[in-house]
Amino acid sequence: MSSSDKNKESKQAIFHINKEENFPDWFGEICRVAELADIRYGVKGFTPFPPWSYMTMDIMFDFYDTALKRKRHLPMLFPTVIPEGNLTKETEHVEGFTPSVFWIGEIGDGEKLEERLALRPTSETAIYPMYSLWIRSWRDMPLKRYQRCSVFRSEIKSTRPFLRGREFLWIESHNVFTTHEGALAQVMEDIETTKEVVTGDYGLPIMVFKRTQWDKFPGGLNTYAADTLMPDGKVIQLPSTHDLGDNFARAFDIKYLNENNETAYAWQTCYGPAVSRMFGALISVHGDDKGLRLPFKLAPYQVVIIPIIKGKNADAVLEYCKKIEQTLDKAGFRVHLDDCDATPGWKYNYWEMKGVPIRVEAGPRDIKEEQVVVFRRDIMKRESVALKDLKKHIKALGKEIDQTLKSQAEAKFEGLVVDADTIGQIEDAMDKGKIARTPLCTIEMEGLSCDEEIKDKTGGEIRGTRIDIDEKADGVCPVCGKVAQDIVYVARSY
Amino acid sequence: MSSSDKNKESKQAIFHINKEENFPDWFGEICRVAELADIRYGVKGFTPFPPWSYMTMDIMFDFYDTALKRKRHLPMLFPTVIPEGNLTKETEHVEGFTPSVFWIGEIGDGEKLEERLALRPTSETAIYPMYSLWIRSWRDMPLKRYQRCSVFRSEIKSTRPFLRGREFLWIESHNVFTTHEGALAQVMEDIETTKEVVTGDYGLPIMVFKRTQWDKFPGGLNTYAADTLMPDGKVIQLPSTHDLGDNFARAFDIKYLNENNETAYAWQTCYGPAVSRMFGALISVHGDDKGLRLPFKLAPYQVVIIPIIKGKNADAVLEYCKKIEQTLDKAGFRVHLDDCDATPGWKYNYWEMKGVPIRVEAGPRDIKEEQVVVFRRDIMKRESVALKDLKKHIKALGKEIDQTLKSQAEAKFEGLVVDADTIGQIEDAMDKGKIARTPLCTIEMEGLSCDEEIKDKTGGEIRGTRIDIDEKADGVCPVCGKVAQDIVYVARSY
Repeated sequence: MSSSDKNKESKQAIFHINKEENFPDWFGEICRVAELADIRYGVKGFTPFPPWSYMTMDIMFDFYDTALKRKRHLPMLFPTVIPEGNLTKETEHVEGFTPSVFWIGEIGDGEKLEERLALRPTSETAIYPMYSLWIRSWRDMPLKRYQRCSVFRSEIKSTRPFLRGREFLWIESHNVFTTHEGALAQVMEDIETTKEVVTGDYGLPIMVFKRTQWDKFPGGLNTYAADTLMPDGKVIQLPSTHDLGDNFARAFDIKYLNENNETAYAWQTCYGPAVSRMFGALISVHGDDKGLRLPFKLAPYQVVIIPIIKGKNADAVLEYCKKIEQTLDKAGFRVHLDDCDATPGWKYNYWEMKGVPIRVEAGPRDIKEEQVVVFRRDIMKRESVALKDLKKHIKALGKEIDQTLKSQAEAKFEGLVVDADTIGQIEDAMDKGKIARTPLCTIEMEGLSCDEEIKDKTGGEIRGTRIDIDEKADGVCPVCGKVAQDIVYVARSY
Repeated sequence: MSSSDKNKESKQAIFHINKEENFPDWFGEICRVAELADIRYGVKGFTPFPPWSYMTMDIMFDFYDTALKRKRHLPMLFPTVIPEGNLTKETEHVEGFTPSVFWIGEIGDGEKLEERLALRPTSETAIYPMYSLWIRSWRDMPLKRYQRCSVFRSEIKSTRPFLRGREFLWIESHNVFTTHEGALAQVMEDIETTKEVVTGDYGLPIMVFKRTQWDKFPGGLNTYAADTLMPDGKVIQLPSTHDLGDNFARAFDIKYLNENNETAYAWQTCYGPAVSRMFGALISVHGDDKGLRLPFKLAPYQVVIIPIIKGKNADAVLEYCKKIEQTLDKAGFRVHLDDCDATPGWKYNYWEMKGVPIRVEAGPRDIKEEQVVVFRRDIMKRESVALKDLKKHIKALGKEIDQTLKSQAEAKFEGLVVDADTIGQIEDAMDKGKIARTPLCTIEMEGLSCDEEIKDKTGGEIRGTRIDIDEKADGVCPVCGKVAQDIVYVARSY
């Protein structure tokens, strides 16, 4: 940040909004003040991402990249545009996505395209025609590929940076197997990856659901998705993974010769961690009334060093701070020495608002004592640390901070679930910002009205059945009164 | 690659095309056989990039990322779409780019957009209106930002993967300064970065030119660009950097308060390393008749391990190879153990064609001798290496391979320049695939016809004046006969 950080005086350093009571304001203001997204770009739902959010998202992508590569997925990249003919090949899929597609129809000074091009809303219809060419024999599978890219959907609802944009940043993983069992095992692997990265690395607590038949990925057999809890009591969908069955293989002609030399259709899955949306959830879940609290693992600057300069000691203090910067940099930490001419107090506020997990302060007395003052953002606590212990201390403290953020978020999520057997009880739960655990006739059949009645009467949506824990259905559907086949969770949602 | 590498039998392992004599075939075929780009996507100029090319480009991006961050540029990301109104603000710029713009005019089932959106052909007109809001005071500068993204240009000429596509992958760096001197210093820094990364890391020899006034970036003052030499004797433009003067600041109202509290226009530069194009140049320059030769620094797999399995020793050999894999992986090398069931000979050919710089072979005898056989792809040489020396050996060999690739490329580039004082001599140089060094009236004035006459009569293009070496003009322009102000280089080009 150094180059532009000279401009401290013209920037806002102090942030104070009660997050729990006034979440929409909190979110909008922190995006502006911490320079995360600029809503003045002039195209609804499209926002530039300045360095502070982009660098954090880049690190978030890295964790996914590492996890996927470890599980033998390989990266690739497909074009941003998809010919219209491709999009129309799978009936349910085209119905699900066409309403939100951006269409390119012209080039230059009015040259009409013979076939319109869609900006990819998701890439099944771009990738699977090529898979049809690439896959020939059982030996070509499992084929596990992913790409990091922008996708484009013209959301009808009001847009908000990160949480609901018309261009968002994600990874999409597209995998092909010889059997349905292979595909289902991939779905389970994806759920594990979600837990590892989203909870393990990002510190976001999740519940994992099998979605209802009326809320699944268009064209697929089943959708499995993680939800986390936002400060306003609504849940938001994080990564989802889809068992596509052989529907797309039939639509896109992905066939192979099996070991008996017979032709068969392949089985497919896809998985879509939307990193920009998760960034929105991340800042919302971990942030506090003073601004951002970024996990140590994800912060663009993990440590910021503030020299406490008083008069003639300036050179010595700066020298001392530069050495600390070098030491920490060499040790592999992302460290930033803020040597601009703002006051230390101003800098404290500024970097607290930006969410830097650890601050190191050093002044003349610290030089004498061969120590520094270390401040942790998560619980706003200061302590003196001997210079010789600093590296070790920061490593341990970083882990502690991430653990604290995760535990605090988990504590809020826990105990939020209440059992509800009637519409009235569900409504009551929704009013109190809780999540209702309720019996339901079934999630397996499309076109039922129980779902709509619950939504109309309570404002809550059925998120599906838990697959991260074992639960047996019990009781009757609060709407139709039939014996319940499923236990579902109802919550207000994004 | 492991998952799909089972399919060895159905893939082509042996590649043999004389690169120098038949470069277009070589290029098309290596893209297909090494799975670098698939031209069957169905939209002219748009090609999927499978893992082997994508992973290499990703590493190429990393080297740029590191270099730019070291020089205090920060990453960000702007939207893919630009409102039409933005594009039309700088007259020369809009004239230069509008003919090649892809336009989005509709959403979903026929909803017309009020204002059309362009797929970014380059992002000046997306970014600078925001810079106008972000920049307020001299303290905000230098502002040094860049983004990694796709850009879209509807090329009229025939397209070729990497070398000329309609969607390509690049970095664009957009920088703002209080003075023209500051901007010019940035241009020089960019040229240094080009040398460091493109020659230092990618091993591509370059000449750096100040382009003529009729060949500069639309809307800028001056363009400085690097050219490298392709196997067919044509040069290709690699990164270019542009002194934009205050033209864009005036068009987009980027003003600031200077230290005397007066309002002034800012000065700008932009810099555009097109990584996908450089990948095209990289494989072309370093490749040979047997396929790719990837630099050690850039190869997705730096080392491939081939177990030489014979009958009952299989387990022991595989075990030995796995240990080597772990050792090299831990040491930070990108290593791949190819344990599929193809023959060793098949695997040798396959990975040679793919350009993996180092191959380690190990069989029963190697276990006994506590050694391995190490093969280097660049000069196709084998030698035995004691297991205990392997890490050190590979590190040194990697450097040697990169040096060799660079030296071989430089040797071809050197001695290619011939002095030419007449149109006939230039024509002769072009016919022989050489680069003509020739006096010219001037490169500083637009609308001269000397340039066109040279092009018409010789097929060569004026690349500009060298700025990486000092050269004084001497003689007369071979076309108009006026006293030469400049020494220019003429070459056939992409």
